[in-house]
Amino acid sequence: MIAEQYRSMLGQKSVIRQLSEAAGRRAQQIGAENVFDYSLGNPSVPAPEAFRRALLSLVEEEDPMRLHGYSPTLGIPSVKKAIADSLNRRFDMEYGPEHIFPVSAAAAAIAHALRAVTCPGDEVLTFAPFFPEYHPYVELTGAKLRVVPADTTSFQIDFDAFEKMLGPKVAAVLVNTPNNPSGAVYSAATLARLAELMEKKAAEYGHDIFLISDEPYREIVFDGQTQPYVSKFYRNTISCYSFSKALSIPGERIGYLAVNPACPEAAEIVNMCGQISRGIGHNCPSSLMQLAVARVLDQTADFSVYEKNRNLLYDCLTDCGFEVVKPQGTFYIFPKALEEDAAAFCRKALDYDLVLVPADSFGCPGYFRMAYCVGTEKVERSLPVLRRFVRETYGRQV
Amino acid sequence: MIAEQYRSMLGQKSVIRQLSEAAGRRAQQIGAENVFDYSLGNPSVPAPEAFRRALLSLVEEEDPMRLHGYSPTLGIPSVKKAIADSLNRRFDMEYGPEHIFPVSAAAAAIAHALRAVTCPGDEVLTFAPFFPEYHPYVELTGAKLRVVPADTTSFQIDFDAFEKMLGPKVAAVLVNTPNNPSGAVYSAATLARLAELMEKKAAEYGHDIFLISDEPYREIVFDGQTQPYVSKFYRNTISCYSFSKALSIPGERIGYLAVNPACPEAAEIVNMCGQISRGIGHNCPSSLMQLAVARVLDQTADFSVYEKNRNLLYDCLTDCGFEVVKPQGTFYIFPKALEEDAAAFCRKALDYDLVLVPADSFGCPGYFRMAYCVGTEKVERSLPVLRRFVRETYGRQV
Repeated sequence: MIAEQYRSMLGQKSVIRQLSEAAGRRAQQIGAENVFDYSLGNPSVPAPEAFRRALLSLVEEEDPMRLHGYSPTLGIPSVKKAIADSLNRRFDMEYGPEHIFPVSAAAAAIAHALRAVTCPGDEVLTFAPFFPEYHPYVELTGAKLRVVPADTTSFQIDFDAFEKMLGPKVAAVLVNTPNNPSGAVYSAATLARLAELMEKKAAEYGHDIFLISDEPYREIVFDGQTQPYVSKFYRNTISCYSFSKALSIPGERIGYLAVNPACPEAAEIVNMCGQISRGIGHNCPSSLMQLAVARVLDQTADFSVYEKNRNLLYDCLTDCGFEVVKPQGTFYIFPKALEEDAAAFCRKALDYDLVLVPADSFGCPGYFRMAYCVGTEKVERSLPVLRRFVRETYGRQV
Repeated sequence: MIAEQYRSMLGQKSVIRQLSEAAGRRAQQIGAENVFDYSLGNPSVPAPEAFRRALLSLVEEEDPMRLHGYSPTLGIPSVKKAIADSLNRRFDMEYGPEHIFPVSAAAAAIAHALRAVTCPGDEVLTFAPFFPEYHPYVELTGAKLRVVPADTTSFQIDFDAFEKMLGPKVAAVLVNTPNNPSGAVYSAATLARLAELMEKKAAEYGHDIFLISDEPYREIVFDGQTQPYVSKFYRNTISCYSFSKALSIPGERIGYLAVNPACPEAAEIVNMCGQISRGIGHNCPSSLMQLAVARVLDQTADFSVYEKNRNLLYDCLTDCGFEVVKPQGTFYIFPKALEEDAAAFCRKALDYDLVLVPADSFGCPGYFRMAYCVGTEKVERSLPVLRRFVRETYGRQV
């Protein structure tokens, strides 16, 4: 009577996880400092000191009954208000607490949003390259994930391909900007055109099409730029946010879902999330974590190391002749492999203790991802190794 | 395109929640100290000091990258091992870390267990009186919850009724001992007979029947007694534990699922829970909370106030002529109302600012629940009010 739906998933270990485990085994042989592990998107800078202080003062000063007591089903009201106020201040929005639903990070936000606005059998569109976990997120709701092919010139959106796939069965479009794995930041022009097309099709089909915006990297944008706020462009937007990357606290599982107040069903969607939680046993993130992040909403970890690493890797990769779009944010870079089969390319790199992830599972065959959330010193030591790998394996004079 | 499945649930506010909100409004009128709110099962004693110290020392001393970093999908290995060791020590079991899956408290444990061992269309049996949230927990998996009528003489199990309902479509039996709302503690004899019957039927039908044991009140047992460990009695048992009540930290959403090592599919079920998490966006409880509870596994909050309250209320209720089984644990008492319609009874009590919960939604019409997780001083002040209510409303000389 074991549920076959989940048992059949047991074999499907993610490529990223397999590579990361291989890197771990190799580290035991030759020392972790000698393995250039670019496989995992695990923040490499500490949480800001203000977050540590917030935790300590809450535990030291608050009444434990209040601090560790049940959070209301829809989240702690003061936390919801603080989040709404911060978003309004930073992005010129008009959220109230009733539009905010605290959740266990972006994965949970997406799980709730999908259950709120899709029904089994509906289609959900996303754009390659995309985070492979979107497959289980979408498919375990009973909806179907369809992937719009990548615009590999800029990793913005291939609108011709999108328009062809945006049929009447599409209930939601799932975007991720700044993007894992490409590092692209959707421009205001891209978002405006996306919204325009979705509005046109929604009117044509006579039903809503929701935009689910996965935003864990929202604050990690380089060169002094910022990510245009996705929800500004399209009223039926559900923003799915996580503090995992912004505060470097991925283990604490804390984030929120924010429904655009202009969405006619906004408050209802948040209330439905409370009901969805009952079925999936979620029942709010940790109350201590809700209260702690509410105290540091406008702060982030220090991302300067990511930008430094991006520069070092981009310069070296272009120098080696890789075709690569310069990442504008995140801590990923997404070059084209030096042979058609990116998996074979990455296997060969592994012989040099370079752990790279082939992008087939990201919906972009022929490319590979490097997660450069590692120390800069290690990036620097990896560059001559990368050059040697390219020289010895592909005969390039670099 | 809003999912009707969840939208249709929006009207269904729980009776407990409605009553608790009414009590809140009344408290604003006459002061919280004058409302005898027995509606909510919210722990009323603080977390043990050792838990506070564990949090502080983790935040003060641990590397923030390790402390707040991603937990592996199946939980932090050292935490899983500590939980297994504690269970083995206390209950003479043979758990390994591979049998333990840390989750966001018992609700999440049940959500995972149900998805692992039932398929849509299967039946899940539970025993009245039962926690009403079992309905969404079970029904949002696509399985069907069927309720075995209560044994109102002792609130153990009506085995004749159970045997009749234990048909071939039953994939799992969901028990809760110590029981919310009756306060009953299933005896070793009850558990042995339950196991025997389930084994017999599983053999007869040729398929497994899993026992899902919801154990948030496991440590709250009075009169120096203990709860016999459910999993000892039946090998295909999944224990669903929460620290919410044991440590008085319900807002922190931390617990675990433990599969009996003798279950042939034990390790596989835990691995499947990792896959189930991907679809529901759970991805482990807070890493700080995992590490903190692992340091205080054999401790609990001070439950003496619950036992004192139980004694006061039981004596007064029997004195007033209520039919009531003496609770052996939890912080609930479950008397029969003084008229057939328990909802009418509870409405009349509300005029005396006594907030009692009618038990129709617990599958036991004619009864009501009192959650006595309140200060003893308040319980003492409520007793003359209870007597006056009974005297004036039902003409009893008390």
